[in-house]
Amino acid sequence: MEEAAAAHPYVPRDLKLPGYVPISMSMSTILAVYLGASLFVVTFVWFLLGRKKAHLDRLLMCWWAFTGLTHMVLEGYFVFSLTFQRQHFFKGDSRYAGRDSAVIAVEGITAVIEGPACLLAVYAIAKGKSYSYVLQLAISLGQLYGCLVYFITAFLEGDNFATNSFYYYSYYVGANGWWVLIPLLISYRCWNKICESANGVETKMKKKIR
Amino acid sequence: MEEAAAAHPYVPRDLKLPGYVPISMSMSTILAVYLGASLFVVTFVWFLLGRKKAHLDRLLMCWWAFTGLTHMVLEGYFVFSLTFQRQHFFKGDSRYAGRDSAVIAVEGITAVIEGPACLLAVYAIAKGKSYSYVLQLAISLGQLYGCLVYFITAFLEGDNFATNSFYYYSYYVGANGWWVLIPLLISYRCWNKICESANGVETKMKKKIR
Repeated sequence: MEEAAAAHPYVPRDLKLPGYVPISMSMSTILAVYLGASLFVVTFVWFLLGRKKAHLDRLLMCWWAFTGLTHMVLEGYFVFSLTFQRQHFFKGDSRYAGRDSAVIAVEGITAVIEGPACLLAVYAIAKGKSYSYVLQLAISLGQLYGCLVYFITAFLEGDNFATNSFYYYSYYVGANGWWVLIPLLISYRCWNKICESANGVETKMKKKIR
Repeated sequence: MEEAAAAHPYVPRDLKLPGYVPISMSMSTILAVYLGASLFVVTFVWFLLGRKKAHLDRLLMCWWAFTGLTHMVLEGYFVFSLTFQRQHFFKGDSRYAGRDSAVIAVEGITAVIEGPACLLAVYAIAKGKSYSYVLQLAISLGQLYGCLVYFITAFLEGDNFATNSFYYYSYYVGANGWWVLIPLLISYRCWNKICESANGVETKMKKKIR
């Protein structure tokens, strides 16, 4: 068991990963599959599901399909896999390989609740449902909450989980950064839309009373 | 250091708490101060701030004032205190005394973001602001997310942090349970109100187009 502690590529070097099995695919293969599949999903949503919608709605449908499938497939696989065969780009954060409980909790909520909710958001935008904005806001706030827990726990535990600075900036900061920026923008937009509706209904009711 | 490991009342017994100082107040004193202060706040909000509002709105204003001050005072004190002088009722979960990073992250978000937002909700209900429902929904979803992370991480780490079953059921299950039940009810109500508004505006716009 003791020698197994160092027989993995993760940082911190003394992290214990009993039963660690190196992954058979290269990082470039994994990235290529992920980006290829994502491009396919985005193209499908843009040209088929969103063809009758305005450009911004189409873009949002693509985002929700992409992020929803990422949550369900990538993060769901992580949460429910019983082995340590972690994707290479998790070298950006060894807490995935170490099965840190905060990371599992956040990823579990993301995969089980937010993933399916994202696909519902694609449908809600396509059909112009009344819950479209509030659903998008709820998911985005959940993504932001998850990122906050993810970054705060890493900071409190010494922020030393990336194999090197390339992984630190490309995965831990860069890739996660999109899940902060885009939910912030969507939250801001949906919040305003919801307040506009509330104002609209209020004005209408005041007019009725007069 | 070694003998310090056992010189505290928390479970698991091998939890290391260097610098642990027993708290000088009894559990009944702390509970009396907390319940007394809460009763004062609730009475103040019910009879003064909420006196012109409907009963449900008054009740909600009391809840937001109570939970907001709990978040800012009790949980804020925990997050930013540097000693281990933890309240006795945290015997219900030794992860507070052990400064578990997931618990600090959730409590930090709750104290810094949700606490002030709760007080804003009191104001928003009192003044009938257009963001009242969406703000209440956002805070409630945050409280639910926090509880989920709190319970899932405890479960993953063996769920063995309560000194005895009285603390387990009264604090860990009982006290936290209110922050699951009430946010669920509020989320449900606000979600419906927001959808009604969206529907109302949509109907109005359709009528205009005709």
